[in-house]
Amino acid sequence: VILEQSLEIERSSGLKLAYLALADSRGLVFAPGGLTDGEVMGILAAKAQGRSLDRLPAHVTAAQLAQGKAGGGVQDEMGEILTRQLPTCDVRLLVDVTAAESTDELLARALHLGWGVVLANKHPLVGCTERARPLLDARGRRLRYEATVGAGLPVIATLQTLLDSGDEVQHIDGCFSGTLGFLCHCLERGQPFSTSVREAKSLGYTEPDARQDLSGMDVARKALILARSCGQDMELGDVEVEPLFPAEMRSLTAAQFMDSLESLDGAYRDRISAARDRGRVLRYVASVEDDRCRVGWREVEREDIMAALQGPDNMVRYHTRRYAGNPLVLIGPGAGPERTAAGVLADILDLASHSAMEFGQE
Amino acid sequence: VILEQSLEIERSSGLKLAYLALADSRGLVFAPGGLTDGEVMGILAAKAQGRSLDRLPAHVTAAQLAQGKAGGGVQDEMGEILTRQLPTCDVRLLVDVTAAESTDELLARALHLGWGVVLANKHPLVGCTERARPLLDARGRRLRYEATVGAGLPVIATLQTLLDSGDEVQHIDGCFSGTLGFLCHCLERGQPFSTSVREAKSLGYTEPDARQDLSGMDVARKALILARSCGQDMELGDVEVEPLFPAEMRSLTAAQFMDSLESLDGAYRDRISAARDRGRVLRYVASVEDDRCRVGWREVEREDIMAALQGPDNMVRYHTRRYAGNPLVLIGPGAGPERTAAGVLADILDLASHSAMEFGQE
Repeated sequence: VILEQSLEIERSSGLKLAYLALADSRGLVFAPGGLTDGEVMGILAAKAQGRSLDRLPAHVTAAQLAQGKAGGGVQDEMGEILTRQLPTCDVRLLVDVTAAESTDELLARALHLGWGVVLANKHPLVGCTERARPLLDARGRRLRYEATVGAGLPVIATLQTLLDSGDEVQHIDGCFSGTLGFLCHCLERGQPFSTSVREAKSLGYTEPDARQDLSGMDVARKALILARSCGQDMELGDVEVEPLFPAEMRSLTAAQFMDSLESLDGAYRDRISAARDRGRVLRYVASVEDDRCRVGWREVEREDIMAALQGPDNMVRYHTRRYAGNPLVLIGPGAGPERTAAGVLADILDLASHSAMEFGQE
Repeated sequence: VILEQSLEIERSSGLKLAYLALADSRGLVFAPGGLTDGEVMGILAAKAQGRSLDRLPAHVTAAQLAQGKAGGGVQDEMGEILTRQLPTCDVRLLVDVTAAESTDELLARALHLGWGVVLANKHPLVGCTERARPLLDARGRRLRYEATVGAGLPVIATLQTLLDSGDEVQHIDGCFSGTLGFLCHCLERGQPFSTSVREAKSLGYTEPDARQDLSGMDVARKALILARSCGQDMELGDVEVEPLFPAEMRSLTAAQFMDSLESLDGAYRDRISAARDRGRVLRYVASVEDDRCRVGWREVEREDIMAALQGPDNMVRYHTRRYAGNPLVLIGPGAGPERTAAGVLADILDLASHSAMEFGQE
């Protein structure tokens, strides 16, 4: 929701962005003529106090706002809004900044009805090919998802430009997780794995259950998004993932898991020092090639620019026909609410700057 | 001209790109309905044989092609073409891939007449503010110049996205010259300056007169383009430039210059080893800040990602409000005909994908 703040800043700059509707998992607020700035601010303030959109205070939901009540029905209500005649706007965009796994149908419907779609949510792009297909087919022109990989870093825009201009991607690799980058940094300085994970957690770098990061699945999703963006037919299950902890630790509670981290310290210490003996450093690397997607530990040479990564920075490296010997490399922080919002905002502005003609109801 | 080859490849992909006219410094070929693929290939073949466009063989200039004769009049003829009614195309683009210093008026006229403009030529953007203003004012929507800095690397696109989405640029720095990057690499490995320059020249990394690269002015132009892209009012003369050779060597002939390179070896050897004693490496760095643009040698720490640059790779590093502590970094080869063509092509496709509506005659 923090993205609204950025949008606020941007109203001034040329395009007029209006919110027709805002929704969370529990409720929806809709104003056919667009929410006023005051209303948006009121809703944000209520959200900041922990209220969901079905429980907004009365002064926020003024008379002209239709407010959806029920829980499960939010997507249905949103779907209904998609079909309305909305004479005041040229370009209609549906922006999914949730982490929900079930928005794909709504998004496909929006595309079908001529809306543009912007995603910070990875899930709609990593579902089974059959369900993700309508979205993937619309990428570039009507669907944007910059924030799904590397937050505000122009990871998807750069890839799209390479592809559009006729380059051929041979291989993409990199470090797609700030959390795991931070861990590498700690381990390299000789800190035990257990205290490194705890430090990452206390800094807010991990999910409440740190295993969500340490499973490698978040990196795998990003790798799959890049693979599919290159036109590869692949499922999430096809990505080879090396988790940062052994399978038997999956059955623990989150708290038990945190308490048993010490059991992994020895193995990581050995791994790091073995790499160092070979003049290398350890990185958690994603690799996207022709028909193979891998995510896991890799030893990289000290001279490799990947070894120069500091702390939570992400890196995406494009090896293409034009950038064969020396790849094109993007580096920078790939997380954080303001930067994620920036990625979403860039997509919105870019889609909106395309003329209304292309976006007319179909 | 090599860009035409890329364009050729791209005709297939969605947009239909047609060449109305091709011009070099001596001649111009114009076909109101667009040149056929065969005609374009014939012209390219003639160019490859060293012919200029006022001396094309008869079989190339078929009956329907108007061919400009004179030398100085090419721009006038091009200017005349700009005003014609050209019913067959929706989006009209003028692409300047020359190294000419005098195209700015023609380009401004094209913009004024509703054409889009794409530049690989830096000169129109680094002239005095007064003359560059019409171009700078059109940047983003009607003027693109990706290839002027870093060839195909998305240097300008990334900057534009940051600015458009409301970020504030505090500082841009980096290594903008592949030639000088290659020199740094050689010097670092202990090679004398003289042999390093000769090696760069023999590899085709330098201009025929190597001083054009070693003056730092090419880097200064790129720095100025970035500064102006950030909205700074600055002239090329305001850029503080440290050349790689002393002023007294300017009066030599190019050959004399190459012969006296040894006189600089000692100073460079000392400089490199002094940096090494401090745990640093030497890089030729451009720095763009609020109201200051500097280009010259800088010692950087070994841990700095700039120290990890290899050979002729370029680097552009954006320090912004959102990327304050950890900057956003682009790395990759920033030269070469195919990659430069890619930058031009990306601009063409991006401008062309904007609807014809915006581009109608004004």
